[in-house]
Amino acid sequence: MSKGAATREAVLEQAVEMANRVGLAGLTIGSLAERMEMSKSGLFAHFRSKEALQRQVLAYARERFIEQAIRPALATARGEPRVRRLFEGWLACARDGAAGCVFFSATSEFDDQPGTVRDQLTSDHRDLMDSIAQMVRGGVRDGQLRPDTDPDQFAYDLHGVMLAYFYAHRLLRQPDAEARARRAFDTLLAAVRI
Amino acid sequence: MSKGAATREAVLEQAVEMANRVGLAGLTIGSLAERMEMSKSGLFAHFRSKEALQRQVLAYARERFIEQAIRPALATARGEPRVRRLFEGWLACARDGAAGCVFFSATSEFDDQPGTVRDQLTSDHRDLMDSIAQMVRGGVRDGQLRPDTDPDQFAYDLHGVMLAYFYAHRLLRQPDAEARARRAFDTLLAAVRI
Repeated sequence: MSKGAATREAVLEQAVEMANRVGLAGLTIGSLAERMEMSKSGLFAHFRSKEALQRQVLAYARERFIEQAIRPALATARGEPRVRRLFEGWLACARDGAAGCVFFSATSEFDDQPGTVRDQLTSDHRDLMDSIAQMVRGGVRDGQLRPDTDPDQFAYDLHGVMLAYFYAHRLLRQPDAEARARRAFDTLLAAVRI
Repeated sequence: MSKGAATREAVLEQAVEMANRVGLAGLTIGSLAERMEMSKSGLFAHFRSKEALQRQVLAYARERFIEQAIRPALATARGEPRVRRLFEGWLACARDGAAGCVFFSATSEFDDQPGTVRDQLTSDHRDLMDSIAQMVRGGVRDGQLRPDTDPDQFAYDLHGVMLAYFYAHRLLRQPDAEARARRAFDTLLAAVRI
């Protein structure tokens, strides 16, 4: 890794951390420079604009999510085991990591603000829903899941389970949040299993 | 209604509107005064502090939600019809009204900020979950819903359905968001129906 790439990586890691606390909309090159003890002009050379920084934070968070949830799922046997592995990876991201949370908070910040950040959020979400639907479709093809399963509905419902988990875990610090999420996921899966 | 109460009502209505766009955290007495073309000191006399204003916006949104979703449900026959009426009212709030959205965005803004606003959000959410669980419990007692139904899990799951709807409707402007939410709700209800 070149020195520039290493710096970029370190800055983005801090930026995700910060976005997680102050929101993606609250993230500025100035506040990030202060946090990193770097010059604002140095950081500006890396990121050019606040919007570009925000988009790169999303891209970085997306990469972490793919690494921790999507790739391990794709390396797992098709059908139910794969969908379950995805759920476990997503749960771990949501519980421990800052990356997963950025998408959650960014949504309510940018839903009324047309622009490149909102476009990025929308397209990332569509990609995630498509990946889940694809995994479910594989399970249907293999005869593990019911042929009348609606893969897009499953993706929508699983997203709801994860949002409820975020809410219960992050806002309410509800001790049984994870148990509730697991039970909701099991019910979802039981409804499509043959 | 006294003149003071009418003013307060009008201001809170605008405040919910604004919070819906800029977030509850972004709502200040100054920006609200500008929007209302009132003096900042006049508004300050009504609300005292930014935190008090934010709490009163939540209280106002909570009242609207009770009026539009909880009360009509409680006026409907117990069990499944009541739970369904709640769902319909909640959906309408989330689709058309600004009030429902305030809770959604406020959560990600305040989840890491201990204080009276976060406490208010937490307690409002607990009350809502308790109300739903209570409605489900009534259905179990009447023999409409399965005796092994977990009313708290139902409330958790229904909340997930609504969060997914918010996300799909508000961020993605997904045309089938409402149809998906209805289908998710029907599946949830089918699983506990006798």
